[in-house]
Amino acid sequence: MIKAWAARAPKQKLEMFEYDPGPLKADEVEVAVETCGICHSDLSMIDNEWGFSAYPLVPGHEVIGCVAALGDATRGLKIGQRVGIGWACGSCMHCDQCLSGNQNLCAESAGTIIHHHGGFADRVRAQWPWAIPIPDGVDAKEAGPLLCGGVTVFTPFAVYGVKPTDRVGIVGIGGLGHMALKFARAWGCEVTAFTSNEKKADEVRGFGAHHIVNSRDSSQLAKAARSLDLVIVTVNVPLDWKTLIATLRPNGRIHFVGAVLEPIPIEAFDLIGAQRAISGSPNGAPTSSAKMMEFAGLHRILPQNEHFPIAKVNEALDRLRAGKARYRIVLDM
Amino acid sequence: MIKAWAARAPKQKLEMFEYDPGPLKADEVEVAVETCGICHSDLSMIDNEWGFSAYPLVPGHEVIGCVAALGDATRGLKIGQRVGIGWACGSCMHCDQCLSGNQNLCAESAGTIIHHHGGFADRVRAQWPWAIPIPDGVDAKEAGPLLCGGVTVFTPFAVYGVKPTDRVGIVGIGGLGHMALKFARAWGCEVTAFTSNEKKADEVRGFGAHHIVNSRDSSQLAKAARSLDLVIVTVNVPLDWKTLIATLRPNGRIHFVGAVLEPIPIEAFDLIGAQRAISGSPNGAPTSSAKMMEFAGLHRILPQNEHFPIAKVNEALDRLRAGKARYRIVLDM
Repeated sequence: MIKAWAARAPKQKLEMFEYDPGPLKADEVEVAVETCGICHSDLSMIDNEWGFSAYPLVPGHEVIGCVAALGDATRGLKIGQRVGIGWACGSCMHCDQCLSGNQNLCAESAGTIIHHHGGFADRVRAQWPWAIPIPDGVDAKEAGPLLCGGVTVFTPFAVYGVKPTDRVGIVGIGGLGHMALKFARAWGCEVTAFTSNEKKADEVRGFGAHHIVNSRDSSQLAKAARSLDLVIVTVNVPLDWKTLIATLRPNGRIHFVGAVLEPIPIEAFDLIGAQRAISGSPNGAPTSSAKMMEFAGLHRILPQNEHFPIAKVNEALDRLRAGKARYRIVLDM
Repeated sequence: MIKAWAARAPKQKLEMFEYDPGPLKADEVEVAVETCGICHSDLSMIDNEWGFSAYPLVPGHEVIGCVAALGDATRGLKIGQRVGIGWACGSCMHCDQCLSGNQNLCAESAGTIIHHHGGFADRVRAQWPWAIPIPDGVDAKEAGPLLCGGVTVFTPFAVYGVKPTDRVGIVGIGGLGHMALKFARAWGCEVTAFTSNEKKADEVRGFGAHHIVNSRDSSQLAKAARSLDLVIVTVNVPLDWKTLIATLRPNGRIHFVGAVLEPIPIEAFDLIGAQRAISGSPNGAPTSSAKMMEFAGLHRILPQNEHFPIAKVNEALDRLRAGKARYRIVLDM
């Protein structure tokens, strides 16, 4: 039996929950959880905000732990090896996307907390390619949030050929944004933080920002016109999109990783005139996660975490829900 | 004096008009016009639809002609050489975009018919890099529309690394779209035409489409879900954008070259889930135009034109305005 914490219904507090995971499949790895980050999407799933939650729901998809069991068809992993598991825990492995290394874009990609029990537990399972080795040099106690939030903001750097000579803007300096600042700075870029909270200025500079712009002040946004090559949007609230798009230089890209629910009105002319692009991406492929881990190890990039023991998981969730987390929360098992 | 045809005020018929162009600047070339295509944006400028027209307005930015005079600082052109002039007739030549070969993205790019007299005339001037040599193998009588409409639809192929193994959709099979079909087919791609006019089916296949989808029929659009790598939108009217975006495969791109005036509502999830992008571009850089001309020459790609003598320019404009042109109109001087 696996001992976990689960929501029994939408918006409920988590309770202790035991389940029998059944026999380990041939391509599965079972991981003994050491720590697990809390991501905003855990809240969205607990609350059934996206309409596809199944209960009892065991959240947790920023897992760090050690390999406890291996199916017969797994490759390259060893019992006892430290690994991480993020948003996805499986994919079909035979479609065009999977075979070309974009497993995160597989139409049958399986979510760690979607009809599957997640990492707020003593053990959790994943298809073996989705168990990402944690290299030496990465502090395992703090690394959990890299597995989802980290690779989510790292992916645009990995897949779009961002150059160290590019100017990068990060919109929203929270759980995702503060990691994005660190990656952008380590990538060699000139980095602008867009935040509505000016009290954070010193901290935001500490994360890597060279410049700070108030994201709610259209006149400040306007001053940044035609200055940026890549803007990564980590917020999920509406902003002055037209003026934000105008901050892009010719050939610039605004990239969404935050699930902005309200439609974003795009004027074709704002794209056509300067050959701009708008895009988005979900978490990352296993190789992106592995590259991110190596890059994070080399540059000593870690999220800034608060720690809670798993027994205080509901307190931790309330703190995240209240927007008080600075900047990410990790549960210790 | 240059003999031209001009609109004296918005929405007026063109009248004969003579003007003194002044001394030829050092970096300018003067071209004796042989033919000039009519582009939909000539109508937009005559009507002051975009609010920056200046009168008298001489339209015409799909010029084919021969070099009649060269300023002292021009390079690589010879008197008598056949060249073409498109939407832009100049740029600053010293900004980052100009120096890196993206002169069409220069913030000071000059339009051939924006505060400058265009090609409905016996002569027209341009900064020398914007006079594009017409190679042997390109039929000069028919090539005019390649200079604006042609390079506009060719640019996404040239700048985004489109591969012959990609699947390409073209939305709107008119003046721009029929050239886009020809380029996409010659590029080696599997080509889908999206049109609301099913009567054109045979012609549309003749231009290069392997498949035809009714762009107004959301159920037909839905059947094409996750099937295309690049969709080029040449129309300027609202469509079922959400379903059209869903026709993109993971990593796919929808690219706007038509000036859709109404904002396009984009849901971030539709981009994030499959790492899709939305983009746009304006005409093309001189090297894109030159490459397009060589490619068009090799593959015998020409627009399908109707011809009018310049004396019947108002008749020709009325025909285009009525949406009756099949598919492009060229004025013979």
